Amino acid sequence: MDSLERLIRPKSVAIIGASADAGKLTGRPLAFLEKYGYGHEVFPVNPRHQSIGRYPCFPDIRSLPHAPDVAIVLVGSSRVPDTVKELGAIGTGAAIVLAGGFGESGAEGMALQQRLKSAAGNMRLLGPNTIGLVNVTDGIALSASAALQINELVPGSIALVSQSGGILGSLLSRADAQGVGFSKLVATGNESDIDVSDLINYLVDDPATKVIALYLEGLRKPVQFRQATLRAAGAGKPIVAFKVGRSESGIQSASSHTGALAGSDVVYDALFRQLGIIRALYFSDLLDIPLALSSGRRLKGRRVAVVTSTGGAASLVADAAGLAGFETPAPDPMTAGRLKALNIPDAVLDRNPIDVTLAGVKSEYFRDVLDSVLESPSYDAVAVILGSSSITEPETVGAPLRDCFARTDKPVVVFASPHAPHAVRHLNLAGIPTFAAPEACAAAFSAMWRIHRKTSPQTGDPAMPVAVGAEIRCMLRPGPLNEYESKALFAKFGVPVPREICAATPEEAAAAAVRFQGNVVIKALSRDVLHKSDVGGVAVNIPPSDVAATCTRMAETFSLATNRKVEGFLVQELVTGAIELILGLKHDSQLGPSILLGMGGIAAELYKDTAVRLAPLSRKDAEEMIGELKSAPLLSGFRGRPVADVEALIDAMLAFSSMVSSIGTNLLEAEINPLFVLPRGDGVKAADGVAVVAPDKAGIGG
Amino acid sequence: MDSLERLIRPKSVAIIGASADAGKLTGRPLAFLEKYGYGHEVFPVNPRHQSIGRYPCFPDIRSLPHAPDVAIVLVGSSRVPDTVKELGAIGTGAAIVLAGGFGESGAEGMALQQRLKSAAGNMRLLGPNTIGLVNVTDGIALSASAALQINELVPGSIALVSQSGGILGSLLSRADAQGVGFSKLVATGNESDIDVSDLINYLVDDPATKVIALYLEGLRKPVQFRQATLRAAGAGKPIVAFKVGRSESGIQSASSHTGALAGSDVVYDALFRQLGIIRALYFSDLLDIPLALSSGRRLKGRRVAVVTSTGGAASLVADAAGLAGFETPAPDPMTAGRLKALNIPDAVLDRNPIDVTLAGVKSEYFRDVLDSVLESPSYDAVAVILGSSSITEPETVGAPLRDCFARTDKPVVVFASPHAPHAVRHLNLAGIPTFAAPEACAAAFSAMWRIHRKTSPQTGDPAMPVAVGAEIRCMLRPGPLNEYESKALFAKFGVPVPREICAATPEEAAAAAVRFQGNVVIKALSRDVLHKSDVGGVAVNIPPSDVAATCTRMAETFSLATNRKVEGFLVQELVTGAIELILGLKHDSQLGPSILLGMGGIAAELYKDTAVRLAPLSRKDAEEMIGELKSAPLLSGFRGRPVADVEALIDAMLAFSSMVSSIGTNLLEAEINPLFVLPRGDGVKAADGVAVVAPDKAGIGG
Repeated sequence: MDSLERLIRPKSVAIIGASADAGKLTGRPLAFLEKYGYGHEVFPVNPRHQSIGRYPCFPDIRSLPHAPDVAIVLVGSSRVPDTVKELGAIGTGAAIVLAGGFGESGAEGMALQQRLKSAAGNMRLLGPNTIGLVNVTDGIALSASAALQINELVPGSIALVSQSGGILGSLLSRADAQGVGFSKLVATGNESDIDVSDLINYLVDDPATKVIALYLEGLRKPVQFRQATLRAAGAGKPIVAFKVGRSESGIQSASSHTGALAGSDVVYDALFRQLGIIRALYFSDLLDIPLALSSGRRLKGRRVAVVTSTGGAASLVADAAGLAGFETPAPDPMTAGRLKALNIPDAVLDRNPIDVTLAGVKSEYFRDVLDSVLESPSYDAVAVILGSSSITEPETVGAPLRDCFARTDKPVVVFASPHAPHAVRHLNLAGIPTFAAPEACAAAFSAMWRIHRKTSPQTGDPAMPVAVGAEIRCMLRPGPLNEYESKALFAKFGVPVPREICAATPEEAAAAAVRFQGNVVIKALSRDVLHKSDVGGVAVNIPPSDVAATCTRMAETFSLATNRKVEGFLVQELVTGAIELILGLKHDSQLGPSILLGMGGIAAELYKDTAVRLAPLSRKDAEEMIGELKSAPLLSGFRGRPVADVEALIDAMLAFSSMVSSIGTNLLEAEINPLFVLPRGDGVKAADGVAVVAPDKAGIGG
Repeated sequence: MDSLERLIRPKSVAIIGASADAGKLTGRPLAFLEKYGYGHEVFPVNPRHQSIGRYPCFPDIRSLPHAPDVAIVLVGSSRVPDTVKELGAIGTGAAIVLAGGFGESGAEGMALQQRLKSAAGNMRLLGPNTIGLVNVTDGIALSASAALQINELVPGSIALVSQSGGILGSLLSRADAQGVGFSKLVATGNESDIDVSDLINYLVDDPATKVIALYLEGLRKPVQFRQATLRAAGAGKPIVAFKVGRSESGIQSASSHTGALAGSDVVYDALFRQLGIIRALYFSDLLDIPLALSSGRRLKGRRVAVVTSTGGAASLVADAAGLAGFETPAPDPMTAGRLKALNIPDAVLDRNPIDVTLAGVKSEYFRDVLDSVLESPSYDAVAVILGSSSITEPETVGAPLRDCFARTDKPVVVFASPHAPHAVRHLNLAGIPTFAAPEACAAAFSAMWRIHRKTSPQTGDPAMPVAVGAEIRCMLRPGPLNEYESKALFAKFGVPVPREICAATPEEAAAAAVRFQGNVVIKALSRDVLHKSDVGGVAVNIPPSDVAATCTRMAETFSLATNRKVEGFLVQELVTGAIELILGLKHDSQLGPSILLGMGGIAAELYKDTAVRLAPLSRKDAEEMIGELKSAPLLSGFRGRPVADVEALIDAMLAFSSMVSSIGTNLLEAEINPLFVLPRGDGVKAADGVAVVAPDKAGIGG
């Protein structure tokens, strides 16, 4: 039996440190097991009781009749390692450790967590610092969450994996109020063993789960996470993630909570995009978006009809949808004719929102209008507004909504404008995604649209590492490389560079310059000075006849400014008419190497005009990065400019990515700035660049 | 008696078309008047009844015992004008017209609304297309909103003015569920007479109102709105506005709803900023922000403590606060020592969030921790998290919260992580702003911080229109002005221009060029061609000796490209080392003239690096606009550049604004592009520009 299967569908549960007082934290797990109808063996362990409720109580782990599938460990942190060791020794399947005071609380706690992990041996561990899990599908609550004091568990197809136990409880109670059901809820806490990726893998194979919702504070195993989420994508199970740590305050808070290392939010965002994970930006989205996706309906276009009896709330939804890039066209003539023929007094049916008005709040009107709109070829989805009548007469709109929903496969979402908890709960239980926020309708449509587009085939696989031969190994001289060396390295992997000649002296430079047609660029070579232009180390548009004198002057100025000698001169062809980009490598402490594409000059910094993806890049990644730049129009013929060589840019990005993957962690820094992008057909050229190699070359792949 | 006072605090109410069936829309107003304890005269008017409930019923308006202060008109739209005429004739104070089918529904409805307005005469009108109003302070419901079916009206200090009746109902029912009280709620509908501005004016003088919340679809009287909101600011009553129409879909929807013209959202945003109005961007903010402000507490700094028993939810709030620019520093040593001395087992008290953890959920712990944190000089505000315990034991945290809240004047906000409606309602009723969304805490702090900063004195009044004398009138030749004429106009109002000479022939230009030190810029003059540089009409850095030949060539190229003759040449000093901005005029169909400042070149378009304010600008407006530019760092010495002459830029903006206000609607277009901003001390220069004057000069001020 698979160890996670034993954890999530146990046939026997021991509760170590169970209390007879259901009001106490340590009394809850037994109470909840019973409350939700657990039908298998339960072994409370507590030397101070003979029995708890109808269950005989065992004095210690040794006395258990057999090894349980799961043990819920409720003892204090200091006693946890020994307890877990005993459990492992008798063959327990998995232990759920609730105590905190481990990895999240400093060096001492980290050491204790290390001891815990060793103590567990082959037994699986959930936690420590977890509130446990709830298998709603099978009615098995293995948790102390106070949120389980709700009346019933609503089964559904959304699985929640949360790195915070409190957030699990929060979402469970919120979902219950809204009539949103779950398949499984698991809090992973400090993830000393079982982590988010393990659970995603489990849920991909769980027939009860259609959508996976994640609350993340930080990823401990990015590689496994990538693999697991790609499996989920392959299985057609969308993942929606809320990740804290978008600000410094959030990063600090998350790290002191479950001890997760945060990494840069920009890189997390890149990871989510690459893996097709939908990012929830508002906390309420973490329920609302999975709810919309769990309907299983897919949005095939961006034309939305808003059907309402109240104008203001319809405007809220139309506006939010418009902001998210959806259209709200008026009904086509045939649909308009059909609506008109319904003869609803006062109704405004030839525009969108389609408004039956207050006087038209009748079930038969709503049924006819909804059918007409859902059958119209002009709409891809419908948003329905519940007005004040839904507070006291939820069925007036609810009944026709359910009927019409069953007759269509188009996405339908509902916004309840007043506080109408019964109407919301009722519709959600009927499978019609119903929200309390108008913005949730737009977020739902956006997610459905993302899912639809993601089903189109991916273009190309990620650029894979290539073998690094002796020639390249020689180039990887530890420390910073100078411009010539850096670009030679980039060129080895396929990044085009300008025609250029390395010269040791002004005279050699002058001799080299005459081999170019026309004026040239002269640069001082130095491994130590990164910003050459700040210290007089760059001269542009120099006639060959002036090259020697320019080099001599440059060497003097450079020495005065930097107190270092130039290592030589680079004579370069003069390239004009290019768009200047930046292509660079960033290492994220948590997620590994990523590639940054940015607009050159001041735009990257002032306008944050950059796009990031984790290495290795696929062709699709590169295309998306280019499209994400605010200055992308510059590349496609902005204001009469020539169209740029985007294909060559993509090739250069993939080459750069291949270099990053091939050299591995020994490439500390790499940046091409500027990368000249020329008009279509003329390619790209790495006009300047720098690379820094780690002292130790052991990490080089190949 | 003031007419709005009669409307909002009537001593007698007639209900025209009252039904005896409280389940019908036309039966509700009477039922609600009675339900909420209206203590004065009520006159139902309906020829088919002798009485409704305990009220004698009148067959028609003529039969009323005396003119009522308010008449609620429930008849169909076609009968409204005659009914209103009768009401006016007998001296009724105000009529509330519920029927739709007026200005919001096309030309016919607009004509009907015109008739309605004439019919009302001196009587005030609320509506048509309104759901009425609720005076919570005095227990007077003059409305048919189904939302009034709640159990009780919670009195409070928030006034809501909504252009949508449905939104009024939505917010009333949502607020009731959250325990948020109102002073007054008014739906203005089509605003054929009484509009948002009238009500703001009333509420400024209403002692029960501390904060004004607005739901807006469009402003019909921007000038009056500006006056009313400035009165509110003067009275220290913050205004929070939610405005739909941020997208095309929203603009269309709002306009078909209550017939409001929308205008550009960018200009609305500018208006709100200038008037100190806090814009709610999420619908839920329209309750949550006023709720926070109604506590009357002001935020004096940006340091926030998060006190919690559950880590995940605290991270949500810390992250949202961080994103909004707040800091969450760890406790200072003294506070940390005080917290440590509390000896709360397992608690994590030396960091922020300050976490008593699950084991520490006890009233005495919370009381001590909250007092310590609220008394710490290191924190300006505190956010408290309610965990799962608040579902079943709301008083564990609620009681100490109330105690500690009463002992401090610092802002405190609360986030309820699980669905805990009782806890939320209870705390709000106790005056402690409590939210269901973590993002609301950040929005609340941001609004409090805005309010705090706005109390600092304004710098300078708006640039006022000046008299336009004969000389300027002569310059305002109808149609487009050429560059020279345009800049001469700008210069008249005080915008500096480069030294330049207008020449009729290449020879004159050459003669003029020698009067400059060094090379010059040559431009073709033309009233018809706006983009000179696209047709060879600009030459830069020309030595005086080449000027004649350059002009001759330019005239030929220009003629070939445009089929027009040049009107002459502009010889201009060569200005280098400047930052290039755009300064322009935009007319908004609804809100009037506004001023746009943008980064020059491609940045305004690609990076939307622009800032807008309505004319006339104050010095503070100009400063804020400059600060809003993403490229603002360029002006203050970015990457070693010289600091730019920001004072001269502000002066030029005020001069331009003065021109716009002085010439009025007859200045159709005006743009300086580029506006050169030179290093500090060297001023600014309008390097190029265009103005277009309307054919009719009647509108010129002065």
